Amino acid sequence: MSVAIVGAGPGDPGLVTVRALELVRNCEILVYDRLVTSGLVSKALGAARISRDGLTQEEVNDLLVHHGRRGRKVVRLKGGDPFIFGRGFEEVEALAAAGIEYEVVPGVSTFTAVPALAGIPLTTRGVAAQLTILTGTSGDGTDLDYDQLAATPGTLVIFMGLKRLEHLADNLILAGRHVDEPAAVISKLSLPDSQTRVGTLGTIAAVARGLESPSLVVVGDVVASSAHLRAAVEQAARAA
Amino acid sequence: MSVAIVGAGPGDPGLVTVRALELVRNCEILVYDRLVTSGLVSKALGAARISRDGLTQEEVNDLLVHHGRRGRKVVRLKGGDPFIFGRGFEEVEALAAAGIEYEVVPGVSTFTAVPALAGIPLTTRGVAAQLTILTGTSGDGTDLDYDQLAATPGTLVIFMGLKRLEHLADNLILAGRHVDEPAAVISKLSLPDSQTRVGTLGTIAAVARGLESPSLVVVGDVVASSAHLRAAVEQAARAA
Repeated sequence: MSVAIVGAGPGDPGLVTVRALELVRNCEILVYDRLVTSGLVSKALGAARISRDGLTQEEVNDLLVHHGRRGRKVVRLKGGDPFIFGRGFEEVEALAAAGIEYEVVPGVSTFTAVPALAGIPLTTRGVAAQLTILTGTSGDGTDLDYDQLAATPGTLVIFMGLKRLEHLADNLILAGRHVDEPAAVISKLSLPDSQTRVGTLGTIAAVARGLESPSLVVVGDVVASSAHLRAAVEQAARAA
Repeated sequence: MSVAIVGAGPGDPGLVTVRALELVRNCEILVYDRLVTSGLVSKALGAARISRDGLTQEEVNDLLVHHGRRGRKVVRLKGGDPFIFGRGFEEVEALAAAGIEYEVVPGVSTFTAVPALAGIPLTTRGVAAQLTILTGTSGDGTDLDYDQLAATPGTLVIFMGLKRLEHLADNLILAGRHVDEPAAVISKLSLPDSQTRVGTLGTIAAVARGLESPSLVVVGDVVASSAHLRAAVEQAARAA
């Protein structure tokens, strides 16, 4: 396989897949994202390592096509899963259009793994039977459809800047979600300095003050699933 | 770590995480689900291997607590990701309540990896900025809320029996989704005999006739992302 589009998982080196590690170890050209841990990049011994930083998506596509056409063993390493808000498919399309063989290697998604590592299951029998994943701004840059989101059952997982958290929480409440609904912010995802804070839609913006991006916001009763998080949610609700 | 709740990924042995493989190789007790590939189970050399088949959830919990309490190295191996429709959290709760140390190892989710392997990205810039994952029956056994689902933007991924596919498609159309919206069925997930068929909401039940469970249904414009799937969707729409 000439070019592989590979998910690196959420950051923890143990959450890389066996196939991803094998491909990285044996590649000749590694094109990697800034959010991929350096420990994984360093496994590409003997490969030319190219950071994607500063390149446009089109330049990345061209790079993959260029080296793929020459039959080089190319790995395009992306954080999390390349096919969930990862633009991995744009690279697949460029390779397919150029007639270059490619392999797709899904990864552990940051969106699903980070909450689990923080003690928050995304679905739980009798609590949440639906999971919705989105980014904090729509694809076209307009604001989210809060009426729609407020009516969505189950768990919401939102990738967004913390600066917009108060706006998000206020608008969900205005659109009908309960002010006491549990919410969590996981700052720095699965990086070593990751932090989780929990509260309610009414308190989460204050509770999360001072945390740093990148972050995930989880809204729903699953946040209060585990005993210690449940106690913290209740404490935040009382303090409000 | 005494007991690890571990995701085995969607079935392909390359999509197991490095940490999962390490834990399986070194465990003393392996409790595994039927959907986990036998290749991975066989890596637990020297471990007592216990199939979860025929055990109730409570019996599984008791088994983990029993061996965890004795300090045995226990791996609970579940298909996909244990925390997305996997009941992994119920096992975590049982261990926490018994005061037993545990480790959580998220896996590549079947829900996200299987469509990617079939050539269907779950989000694509300008096409779908939201992803909704659910099972074909609500947690309490009632039917789905089709009005809500019809109004949900972006991609729907539904884990369900094929017998209910016609019911699902008909109800989504009745509730307002377009009869020509692209839809796909991926039968047998990422097993070697997996098959993908694409069509529209109007044709998918006929197109998928004869396929076997377990299966995932994907509804949304992302289904027509790649050129060869787009051609198949258009052909199904013309034939209808």
